[in-house]
Amino acid sequence: MASVVTERKNQIHRVAARLFRQTGFHATSVRDIAEAVGIQGGSLYNHVQSKDDLLWEIVNGSADRFFAALRPIADSDREIVRKIRDAVVAHVGVITNDLESAAVYTTEWRHLVPKRRESFARRRDEYEKLFQSLVQQGIREGFLSAVDEACATLFVLSALNYVYLWYRPDGRMSSDEVAVMMANFIFDGLRRRTA
Amino acid sequence: MASVVTERKNQIHRVAARLFRQTGFHATSVRDIAEAVGIQGGSLYNHVQSKDDLLWEIVNGSADRFFAALRPIADSDREIVRKIRDAVVAHVGVITNDLESAAVYTTEWRHLVPKRRESFARRRDEYEKLFQSLVQQGIREGFLSAVDEACATLFVLSALNYVYLWYRPDGRMSSDEVAVMMANFIFDGLRRRTA
Repeated sequence: MASVVTERKNQIHRVAARLFRQTGFHATSVRDIAEAVGIQGGSLYNHVQSKDDLLWEIVNGSADRFFAALRPIADSDREIVRKIRDAVVAHVGVITNDLESAAVYTTEWRHLVPKRRESFARRRDEYEKLFQSLVQQGIREGFLSAVDEACATLFVLSALNYVYLWYRPDGRMSSDEVAVMMANFIFDGLRRRTA
Repeated sequence: MASVVTERKNQIHRVAARLFRQTGFHATSVRDIAEAVGIQGGSLYNHVQSKDDLLWEIVNGSADRFFAALRPIADSDREIVRKIRDAVVAHVGVITNDLESAAVYTTEWRHLVPKRRESFARRRDEYEKLFQSLVQQGIREGFLSAVDEACATLFVLSALNYVYLWYRPDGRMSSDEVAVMMANFIFDGLRRRTA
């Protein structure tokens, strides 16, 4: 029984994320979500209390997945070059595995009620800091140039986050191929090496 | 007289862009905009027909500025290395000169009515193609690696577009410094060169 409930909840999350992405949080009604799921508006309230709860659950679900992907890499004893590459691949993987949620995570979180928005912004900052600690270590160990580590981290995360805008699951590149390409862009730049 | 009208219109655009950015297009009412401008809701309609018109004017104003900055560079006979660097600096300049409009250009255009949304999406694509033609020329002339030019362009524009999220006009870096730093990240990557 629990799994049926969970399954329905997951379905509601998927549908809500798609609608929030397509038309924006404010322009999506609970009725729109219920209709797209194929249930009565009233029944939807058996699963979620409010539209704000849905947004909150979707963006925190994404945040959980970003942390779950990055934390073991950051905590591992791989060498830093490997860690940073793996972090890029992991981050892209979270996005390409669920493009709709990644879009909502990136753009719609601003529409959370203020208290939740602040709380979510702290989680995003925390993730950014974790990523930045890898960049910092990369600089310290001489693998990365002596760049501004905060700006470099924002550069990397901006370039990666918007993969959701152009990645196509049925396209010619797999998620891993996109991730490796992005890692190459980030580490080696676009300039041709004159070897 | 004309300049007073234009001045008021510009003010309305600035205020609307700020509100659209802060709370999103759908959550901003015409009354909110009028109040923030300090005029009656009714008077606002002397200047704009609808909220959708405002959004349309703001995003097209940004598109105009992006094209006005890039076109002369693309059409010039500078060498390609210079062109691409100048294009990055110009793009960042348009963003840092008007962060609110850049934010609306990047995220809120999705809320245009369908016909305008399609028309705007075509302009964005056209700009992307113009940028991509520089990347293409850079590859052809051996300045850039033989990267996937469409992906490389999206990588560059993603990294640049989200400068609006973290650039602070009163921060420690000028717009040009940010632009040069971004150009260095993009062309040389983060990896330390072992000379």
